[in-house]
Amino acid sequence: MFSEIFHLDETTTEAELLDLISSLNADPRFHGILVQLPLPPQIEETVIIEALDPIKDVDGLHPFNVGKLLQGVPDFIPATPAGIQQILLRNGYDPAGKHVVVCGRSNIVGKPLATLLLQRRAGSNATVTVTHTRTANLAEITRQADILVAAIGQPRAITADMVKDGVVVIDVGVNRVDDSTRRRGYRLEGDVEFEAVSAKAEAITPVPGGVGPMTIAMLLVNTLTAARLSIHGR
Amino acid sequence: MFSEIFHLDETTTEAELLDLISSLNADPRFHGILVQLPLPPQIEETVIIEALDPIKDVDGLHPFNVGKLLQGVPDFIPATPAGIQQILLRNGYDPAGKHVVVCGRSNIVGKPLATLLLQRRAGSNATVTVTHTRTANLAEITRQADILVAAIGQPRAITADMVKDGVVVIDVGVNRVDDSTRRRGYRLEGDVEFEAVSAKAEAITPVPGGVGPMTIAMLLVNTLTAARLSIHGR
Repeated sequence: MFSEIFHLDETTTEAELLDLISSLNADPRFHGILVQLPLPPQIEETVIIEALDPIKDVDGLHPFNVGKLLQGVPDFIPATPAGIQQILLRNGYDPAGKHVVVCGRSNIVGKPLATLLLQRRAGSNATVTVTHTRTANLAEITRQADILVAAIGQPRAITADMVKDGVVVIDVGVNRVDDSTRRRGYRLEGDVEFEAVSAKAEAITPVPGGVGPMTIAMLLVNTLTAARLSIHGR
Repeated sequence: MFSEIFHLDETTTEAELLDLISSLNADPRFHGILVQLPLPPQIEETVIIEALDPIKDVDGLHPFNVGKLLQGVPDFIPATPAGIQQILLRNGYDPAGKHVVVCGRSNIVGKPLATLLLQRRAGSNATVTVTHTRTANLAEITRQADILVAAIGQPRAITADMVKDGVVVIDVGVNRVDDSTRRRGYRLEGDVEFEAVSAKAEAITPVPGGVGPMTIAMLLVNTLTAARLSIHGR
């Protein structure tokens, strides 16, 4: 497998990055292009994402690919949502007919995951609720979840009183919490109070080591899909 | 205002329709193009929609526009969801912080409406649940709705026992029900048992006359937006 990393200076201009993307779009050696986010302030993220050839957009973030996802005919499923779906399916928790509560509405996790799981497709077909900072009665809603996905970005936001017995919990949070006992000065924590919630849960993913590795695996799946699309077309 | 209707024969081929769209995309007299769906079986709907210049797609159905909607930066909001949002806002029912239950997951109503109302934007910010044919406990979920949107396509699917007192109901259903007392042999009915539900509801839209006229108005709004975009850019 051929792969190349382009380390750009943090003072790179939008025009320079657009030039690079344009050349990568046209270069048949590359089937997939991943722009590592976030970008520095002088570069508009949406301008860059929309400049990608959708057929090489292995992150699935180009609006064209996001739209195909919502319409139920995706070429690429964004990596984290795809990884979460695979964790569920490969552990025997088909979301079909289940009530999935997605806490968080980001463009890379909450919204595409909700979109993915409500589709009329094998591996989806869930009843989906999306909650966020403006949700009035969060605990009342999370307690209904058969499958609870925490993608909030706040350590220990989901506590044991917020889940029902037998819930399946996917913790997408990766929060740095100050910790002077660690050599690097912090530890990683999820969005879920792991010990207390795991006592009630049928299954729960840890942080780190849960969703993260699956995200990477799904990026490789998308790159393979991109190569197939470039050879065989849609 | 200049406008033109192209009545095509039902035997029109996909290639012929693509040719027409290509010429309309290039024709500066037209700011908006609306393809009346459904299309006859020899024409693939997605091929036609994806052939539209997204900047003229006043229906908001091109995947690029759908993706922008999910990402919270839409150029065009699909007409029926936009109309429903306006009905709510102009009658004093801001969905912010409310629990909106959307019954139905079609590409033209359920999915884009749920997408629209959960955004972090003025006029949205709702906690949103999407239900569908695979939902296990529909009545239990609909009874939680502060705002209930019925887009099921089944007459009288929502009955009075399925809603709570004070609910706001938007009925998107347009079902033809046989009725020999009508000159045309049928009457139009919504998805909601209107009389019984309206006794419990704070507000409810009728069928016909509720959502339908707003859909048409929003198409005109989108056409105006398209004209602005063509002149001033994004």
